[in-house]
This record gives sequence, C-alpha cells and structure tokens, in this order.
Amino acid sequence: MTIQFTIQSQDGTARAGRFVTPHGEVLTPCFMPVGTRASVKGVTPDQLRLAGAQIILGNTYHLTLRPGDELIHDLGGLHRFMAWDGPILTDSGGFQVFSLADLRQVSDQGVVFRSHVDGRILELTPEKAVRIQENLGSDIAMCLDECPPADADPAKLHEAVRRTIDWARRSQQAHGRSDQALFAIVQGGLDLELRRSCAEQLSRWDFSGYALGGFSVGEAPEAMHAALPACASFLPETKPRYLMGVGRPQDIIVAVESGIDMFDCVLPTRNGRNASAFTRAGTLRLRNACHRRDPRPLEDDCPCYTCRHFSRAYLHHLFQVEEMLGPTLLSIHNIAHYLRLMSALRQAIQHRQIASFRSQWFLAPLTSHDR
Amino acid sequence: MTIQFTIQSQDGTARAGRFVTPHGEVLTPCFMPVGTRASVKGVTPDQLRLAGAQIILGNTYHLTLRPGDELIHDLGGLHRFMAWDGPILTDSGGFQVFSLADLRQVSDQGVVFRSHVDGRILELTPEKAVRIQENLGSDIAMCLDECPPADADPAKLHEAVRRTIDWARRSQQAHGRSDQALFAIVQGGLDLELRRSCAEQLSRWDFSGYALGGFSVGEAPEAMHAALPACASFLPETKPRYLMGVGRPQDIIVAVESGIDMFDCVLPTRNGRNASAFTRAGTLRLRNACHRRDPRPLEDDCPCYTCRHFSRAYLHHLFQVEEMLGPTLLSIHNIAHYLRLMSALRQAIQHRQIASFRSQWFLAPLTSHDR
Repeated sequence: MTIQFTIQSQDGTARAGRFVTPHGEVLTPCFMPVGTRASVKGVTPDQLRLAGAQIILGNTYHLTLRPGDELIHDLGGLHRFMAWDGPILTDSGGFQVFSLADLRQVSDQGVVFRSHVDGRILELTPEKAVRIQENLGSDIAMCLDECPPADADPAKLHEAVRRTIDWARRSQQAHGRSDQALFAIVQGGLDLELRRSCAEQLSRWDFSGYALGGFSVGEAPEAMHAALPACASFLPETKPRYLMGVGRPQDIIVAVESGIDMFDCVLPTRNGRNASAFTRAGTLRLRNACHRRDPRPLEDDCPCYTCRHFSRAYLHHLFQVEEMLGPTLLSIHNIAHYLRLMSALRQAIQHRQIASFRSQWFLAPLTSHDR
Repeated sequence: MTIQFTIQSQDGTARAGRFVTPHGEVLTPCFMPVGTRASVKGVTPDQLRLAGAQIILGNTYHLTLRPGDELIHDLGGLHRFMAWDGPILTDSGGFQVFSLADLRQVSDQGVVFRSHVDGRILELTPEKAVRIQENLGSDIAMCLDECPPADADPAKLHEAVRRTIDWARRSQQAHGRSDQALFAIVQGGLDLELRRSCAEQLSRWDFSGYALGGFSVGEAPEAMHAALPACASFLPETKPRYLMGVGRPQDIIVAVESGIDMFDCVLPTRNGRNASAFTRAGTLRLRNACHRRDPRPLEDDCPCYTCRHFSRAYLHHLFQVEEMLGPTLLSIHNIAHYLRLMSALRQAIQHRQIASFRSQWFLAPLTSHDR
C-alpha cells in the first residue's frame, strides 16, 4: 500500500498536510504518543482521544518479546489488542536492539541479541522485522536500520548506512501486507554528504514515507538543529517525513520549520510520570513546594481534562502522597500539550506565520528549568 | 442539616430508598468507592461516574495529615479539590487512628497519637474530628468513635461503647455546618445487648443516619453475618443505615438482606491493583498464565469501560509487563462490578426477589479462588 500524502499548505520549507491510513486520517505535522508495550503509559485510549491523539506508536522490540507478535496477531492485531482504533505506526525494533539489548552481534544478515527481559538469544533481520510488524498489523511499518551512536567513527557510520540501505531493500522485498505502508529510514549521523547519499539511494525505491533515524542519540541538540534543514531537504518532497524519537517542543518547532511532518517521543509521558509538566511558560515541577496552595491549572488556556478540572495544588498533593493518579493526570496534560503544539504549528503554516511561531509559542524565555 | 431519607420499597428487612445531599441524590442500597487521600486510587472522577458511582468516601485521618484540612478548605473544599462534584461521605478518622497510628493514648477527652507519616504527635477529639470534616466540606460527616479490635475483652468493649456514645453527643454539639449531615456510629463488637443499648442511646439524639462500626476488624465473616440482622434492627428504621468498611460481595448481600443501606470498602480498588478481578463467577487472578490467550472480557455482560474494550489476554499482558494501565482498568471494572451488584440488589428489593438474590447473583459455587 502507498499512503496518499497531500501537502495542503507550505510556508518556507514547513508543510501542513494530511495522509489517510486504513484506521483514519492524520493531519500533519503530527505527534505520535508512544505506546511501547501496547499501552501509552497510564493513559486509556479514551483519554488519548480526548487529548487529541490521531496516531500512536508501538514498539516492535518490546512487543515481540512480550506478549509476542504472533499472540497479538492471533487476537486480532495490535489495534484490537490495545483497543486503539486509530492509526498506529510501529518502529522496526532496530533502535531498541541497539539501545536496550544486552549483547548484540551485527552482520549483514541482521542482528543477534540477548533479550533485556529474560536473556533469550534472538535474531532480528529485515525480513523478520517486517513479519513481526505484519503480525502486529500497524498502519505504518518501518524498515530495520542500523542506528549507530552519535560518537561512531566514520567507518562505522558508512557501514551502518550501507547496511541500512541494503536492509531497506530487503524489507521492501519481504513486505507483503497490502493494508500497511512501509517507511524507509535514513541514517548517516551528522555527516550531511552521507545523509544525502543515503536519502538518494532510498528515494529510488519509492517508499510510502521517509524517516530520519540516528538523531537524539547523544549529539548536542544544536548540532541536530543545524543538520535538520539539509537532512529534511534530501528526502522526497511528496512523501511524509518522520523525525524519529524527537523530542522537546523546541526541537519539534525547528524540525517543522525544516520540513518534517511526523514525530514521536516518550518525553510527555516519561516527564509526566516524574511530576514534570510542559507549559508554554516552561516546565513545572509539581513536586516543588511552591505549588502547595496554588489554585491555578497547569496552563490557563489548556483545554485538557487535567487543566479543566484540577489545580496545581491538587497535582502537587497527588505526587506528595504518591497517588498513581498524579502520573496519569500529568501524562494526559503533557500529551495534550504536545498535540496542541502540533495543531498550532499546523495553523501557523496555514497562515504563513511559521517564522514568528517560536517566539510566540513560548510565553517566557526558556530558563534552566526547561528541557 | 437532616438528610431526607425515603424508603421506596421493602422486601423482608431489606430496603430500597433514596436520600438527597447538597451534591445530589443517592439511591440505596449504595456502595461508596474509597478515595482515601482525595483520590480513588488510579481512577479519574470521569471514570468513576462512568462506572456508576453516586457517592464516594474520603478519609479524614489521611487528609488532615496530608495535605491538611485547612488547605483543602482554603482551596474550596474537598469536592473542588479532587474534582468530584457528587456526594462525599468522610469518616471521622477514628478507625485509622486505631489501625494505623503508631502510638495512641485514649482518654475520655480524645485520642493522642503519632502520625504514621512523619511521627508528629497529634490529637483527635470529637470536636476536632467535626471541625476537620467541616473544613473538608463533605456531604456526610461521621462522629468520632472508639473502635476496639475483635478480640477486645468485655470491659474494653463497654468502655469503648460508653466513650463512643459520649463522643457522639459532643460531636453533635460541636457540629454547626448546615449543609452537612452527621451520622452516629454504633459500637459493641459481637455483644448484641451492648449493640442494642448503644443504638438505643444514640437513637434519642436524632442523627441523620446511623452506622455500624467495629465490624470487619478481625472477626470471622460468619460471626458478622450472624450478628447483622439483630444489629441492623436496633437502628432507627427511618434513617440510612451504614455498615462501615464492609466488604466482599457476599457480605454486602447478607447485610442488605438484614436492612443495611450504605457500604464502603477498599477491596475493589485494592484487589484491582493486585490483578484480582471480581466477577459473578468468582475471582479472576489476571497474572495467571491461563489468561494469556483469552480473548474474552472479564465478564461477558459487564457494561464497564474495561469489559467493553479489553480482553483478559490484554489485561494479563499489562500485569506481566507492569504497565500502570492494568491496575487502573481492573479498578474500574471492580468498582463497576460492585455498583452493578448494588443496582441489582435494589432491583431485587423492588421486585421482592431478595430471597433468591444470592443464589442467582453468583454464577458458579464459590470456590477457594473467591475472597
């Protein structure tokens, strides 16, 4: 299946568009909350919908280990298993193999690794990553890639790009599910020539979408910001462009300005569980005593369930006494905040105001509280 | 304020009725989910409503320690603080002082105790328990009582009853909030003569409702079941009757048959967090491997959010990987299950079918799985 992607407005290199999946439409730029183990942590599908989520991400590595992709297939697929009837993108498992698995041996064939859960020895090949994602039944599958760390030497980086290109070809050959789109991943670190050559080779094979992998792997945010305009420009204009695993609101804004359409990141839920709330005025740390008697919502103009019902004082109390409702309510707000950012970015592109967006979105200068 | 309680139907000694509070109507028999620290653990107010909750319980002891009843008062009261706009009943704190506090000295004046949170020395008197609950602004407040353990000797039991009666009188004198009802608590353990005399003395003072305290404190369930018909009959017929801290579905059924109208218990949420689901066919332990591939909901005919969307296999997976959505979804189901039980009991009374209720509610004989 090829996803039909339509660019509706452009402002400089920034794009507002839409694409349609078997489980519904997605307006871009879009953010995908992360449902690693078939659950966006602490949040029900109903709450996700209410927060404005259009599409979510599932992690192939985690799901194939537990409960297993064949079990999910036998139970009707990931959508039905987790009761999310909207679009789902699954990653290929590559990133987690390189970041989580205990031991790994990479060859041209694939990756052999030891499960971080139970020590089992497993193999992930391009063909197997496709089969797993076909079992999961996501709307968008990703090709297996090799994701080197930020400090990888040039030889390693070149080898990773060579393998990533070869694996993308094998992924496409292995892929057979007609109701699932397949995206390729561009690697190359901060080497722009390598990024260009990787993107050009992958572009010949007409994937449904193109992702930038290998960012947010330890490099300075400024280095990523500097590389994004070029890296985005190497990708086919007519296909959705996805920046994997990024990032903070300020990173997403720079990336959208550069022409990226899709994002995912664990920050909204991870920070929510850690009592940290995203606001346009910076980060609020709800464990701080300054919130003890504060009757205000996290953000005055936020339409999310948390902000419509609960004070900072109440949220502070929940974290003080370690009630699990605290992580849930803050995750809901943070997801809603990210989705509100995406919607505002989309509107700014439609109104050709992307150039002034960043200075207007943040209500106060970023402080050291912000991350 | 006196709560207007209307008995709408009777079947034997069982009653179906209604009462109205400043925050809405309650149909009885009713079950109150427990929101100890201004949160029904893991469940949002919206999810509570959807599960069918009419009225919830807050714990005075916990709330006065953290975040403090005056802070809650200053922020507009407990309803606003926790965003539950339905009726709330608060206990007096007595039960937790006797079960949780580290050290305590009881005198006719009140109880001096050491906080289980931070070791502070605090005093709870009948007057102070009333003032705290007036600060919280619950719809129904409870008198401070002395709650002896099941194995207390007769002298201790008599002394506790004498104090409980004296403290009820002082609570009534101290109570001034016109938009809050005050219930008295009958003590006396399993000594029916003591229960009768305590109930008779408290009845003279025309409280808005009467509770049975001192059950579920270590006695055999059968001993409680045997004592309930008499203990309920000692309470004024025209007032709501509340059995505190009870219990399992089978306990609630016996109590409703005996003429009890109100219940609270932590079992639905506590068991939910521990992967244990109440069903009419007995308890399901969701961590058990037998659920791994089971596509069925917890209960086929349950209308709750969890049963409408998720399989036992998915819930099993959530507990296997320790996703916090597991406790939330099971708590929602268990609360809905209890509220469905109450609604079915009410209907059985209205249709004069309470005698056959128990045998029809449970779909299979109770097994050792059931608790």
